[in-house]
Amino acid sequence: MASKLLEDRILSEGTFLPGGVIKVDSFLNHQMDPELIAVLGREIADKFREDRVTKILTVEASGIAIAIMVGYFLKVPVVFAKKSRSSNLGKDGLYTAMAHSFTKNVDNTLVVSAKFLKSEDRVLIVDDFLAMGEAVKALRDIVRQAGAELAGVGIAVEKDFQPGGKELRAEGIKLVSLAVVDVSDNGDIAFKAYQ
Amino acid sequence: MASKLLEDRILSEGTFLPGGVIKVDSFLNHQMDPELIAVLGREIADKFREDRVTKILTVEASGIAIAIMVGYFLKVPVVFAKKSRSSNLGKDGLYTAMAHSFTKNVDNTLVVSAKFLKSEDRVLIVDDFLAMGEAVKALRDIVRQAGAELAGVGIAVEKDFQPGGKELRAEGIKLVSLAVVDVSDNGDIAFKAYQ
Repeated sequence: MASKLLEDRILSEGTFLPGGVIKVDSFLNHQMDPELIAVLGREIADKFREDRVTKILTVEASGIAIAIMVGYFLKVPVVFAKKSRSSNLGKDGLYTAMAHSFTKNVDNTLVVSAKFLKSEDRVLIVDDFLAMGEAVKALRDIVRQAGAELAGVGIAVEKDFQPGGKELRAEGIKLVSLAVVDVSDNGDIAFKAYQ
Repeated sequence: MASKLLEDRILSEGTFLPGGVIKVDSFLNHQMDPELIAVLGREIADKFREDRVTKILTVEASGIAIAIMVGYFLKVPVVFAKKSRSSNLGKDGLYTAMAHSFTKNVDNTLVVSAKFLKSEDRVLIVDDFLAMGEAVKALRDIVRQAGAELAGVGIAVEKDFQPGGKELRAEGIKLVSLAVVDVSDNGDIAFKAYQ
């Protein structure tokens, strides 16, 4: 249901650019449709309801909207990693990890205060997009630094033609992507189902 | 009710630093309490229910959580302005405005795609904090560039000892701040009510 809604919106409003760029900025990550995002957040929450999640972890900016909805339906706090262009490595009280953004071709340091992730936490990573997986891998690294456990990863839109999702599944991580988009060489759009 | 909840959390978890800095990063803008933020968002939505709002405008990153909740309860789209350290001025299809961050002592250019704000829109600006008012004034400038109408401004925490709120009220703008915090010279915390 949530997946179908999202797939329909991707087909009706998404723009597909050369190089595998999918723009969904009219409803997901510049302009946002709160009712759609609530449905997506509730669906991700339902998929992890039995996983004893104690905390949601996302990264600014466009992950925050869906993460806050997942946290609302699971009734757990949401922490967002801040992006810094400077390296904060080595600062006391901070977990940091490097994430390369292929879209913007910059290296970001993701930063989370150690106050908000503890070794007893079971963490669900949530983000709007999964492509190369750089952001999710950096967040997973932060979960490890905290000594916390990774409960899984919840994503709105995964690009099937980029390796992030496959790599996470190969590691045995529970990954829920509500829409998995494939774009063929001649530009046809298809959706896959992994669950 | 929402105001009382927020004031209680500020008193129990907020940290007050020299220079008028109020840290509420355990529930509002690094770690976020989704249930509290939903209550705050619903209250702001209720205060603007008769104002024919067609769009919420906020700025990344920490404004997004409360803005998506306001948008959810008003059933209107939410647009977040992106912060850029480079000047995008003059680029086609973008509204831009400069906002100085006194907290971080940097100038940010706020950027919104012209696709998502139209002259027929009635815009509610939402943010987590109001202090000097730089972000809100930049967002108001973007609303003007779009030829849209400003329905008002909804804020979680306003600092009464900094001039942003007073200036907006003096201009006749409908400003709803759920908690208005004053800090006396000897460090006492008090809350004010403007509504």
